[in-house]
Amino acid sequence: MRFGFLVYPGVEELDLVGPWEMATMWRSYADGPECLTVGANTDGIVCAKGLKMTPDVSFDECPKLDFLLVPGGFAALEQAENPDLVRFVSRRGLECSHMLSVCTGSFILHAAGILRDRRATTHWKLLAALREKDHVTVVEDRFVRDGNVWTSAGVSAGIDLTLAFIAEVAGPETASLVQYNSEYYPDGKIYGSAHDTPQASAYFRKLTAEPRP
Amino acid sequence: MRFGFLVYPGVEELDLVGPWEMATMWRSYADGPECLTVGANTDGIVCAKGLKMTPDVSFDECPKLDFLLVPGGFAALEQAENPDLVRFVSRRGLECSHMLSVCTGSFILHAAGILRDRRATTHWKLLAALREKDHVTVVEDRFVRDGNVWTSAGVSAGIDLTLAFIAEVAGPETASLVQYNSEYYPDGKIYGSAHDTPQASAYFRKLTAEPRP
Repeated sequence: MRFGFLVYPGVEELDLVGPWEMATMWRSYADGPECLTVGANTDGIVCAKGLKMTPDVSFDECPKLDFLLVPGGFAALEQAENPDLVRFVSRRGLECSHMLSVCTGSFILHAAGILRDRRATTHWKLLAALREKDHVTVVEDRFVRDGNVWTSAGVSAGIDLTLAFIAEVAGPETASLVQYNSEYYPDGKIYGSAHDTPQASAYFRKLTAEPRP
Repeated sequence: MRFGFLVYPGVEELDLVGPWEMATMWRSYADGPECLTVGANTDGIVCAKGLKMTPDVSFDECPKLDFLLVPGGFAALEQAENPDLVRFVSRRGLECSHMLSVCTGSFILHAAGILRDRRATTHWKLLAALREKDHVTVVEDRFVRDGNVWTSAGVSAGIDLTLAFIAEVAGPETASLVQYNSEYYPDGKIYGSAHDTPQASAYFRKLTAEPRP
């Protein structure tokens, strides 16, 4: 099995690497799929916050994939209008058994026709913009599964999304191995009041209204 | 101000990118420090799980830093015996106001003399190995601050570490902006039973014994 991770200039670093770490831990500890990054070509790219990386394969050379994850970043809104990239995602949507996106990656899935008549989510800042798109029902959860299409809220939410996806595809004990080896037991601390706005996604308005012990 | 992120072949992806995302969000939303990756040279490197990246600057060309974060990975245990890398970390320890490590990065800090007579932590798998080192008190917390030296547990724990560090240096409202923009409100779900071993770090043995609602 093979798990592709789409990359493009301006991709948000943690949108990509959170899920990448979970999926490659699955590979390392429980015979998970081969993981590879896929870009328009194999030239180096600069991510949203300046990290320099190089994709493993180009769109043209990308082998058959079982799963494709589309990370976000502000640049995803432009990439959703890039015909070559949207065509790649759209075609892979026909062969993959599951498609996933993080943050504004959902705008690329939408442009590729993959969110048609589905429930989906995105970064809290873009919930209203996603609602303006046709044929998608926007949900304010940390992540949403609708059939074989999985979308998450912003940036770090891709970690929770990918663990849930692994639990579904390979079982909770495999997700447990991934969680244990990546030591993903967050302290749950919530700082300050920046999230106290009407824009905040429903799931964390609820969370922050009832702080954990 | 300037925040350096050490990289080397085999560095664990999320050890680096979790803190990187938090620090660069601090830069974007609250005038935080300039962030850069620092390697032995600026040749491309392959991370622990295969991600290909390129450091911004070499050890020799690295400008003055205020903070340095040392990520881990199994390769950190070898790098702790690499004299050039250890010398770089040791010298920067004299100029930085804070030094941080994630996961097995603490073995590099130890080799550089920075953990001397301090409390520190590491990935649960290496707690016993760190205890065998001289002049360090190993603590089983998600992260530990001892003066201006901050160390965290494995892989994903670097996110919690860096948020706490930002809250300390720039105040909780700045940490709040970083947390809100990276949407770091984990669902706290714990999968399966892999963590149910005597090796598990005390902080998450406690956590998993009392599941969150």
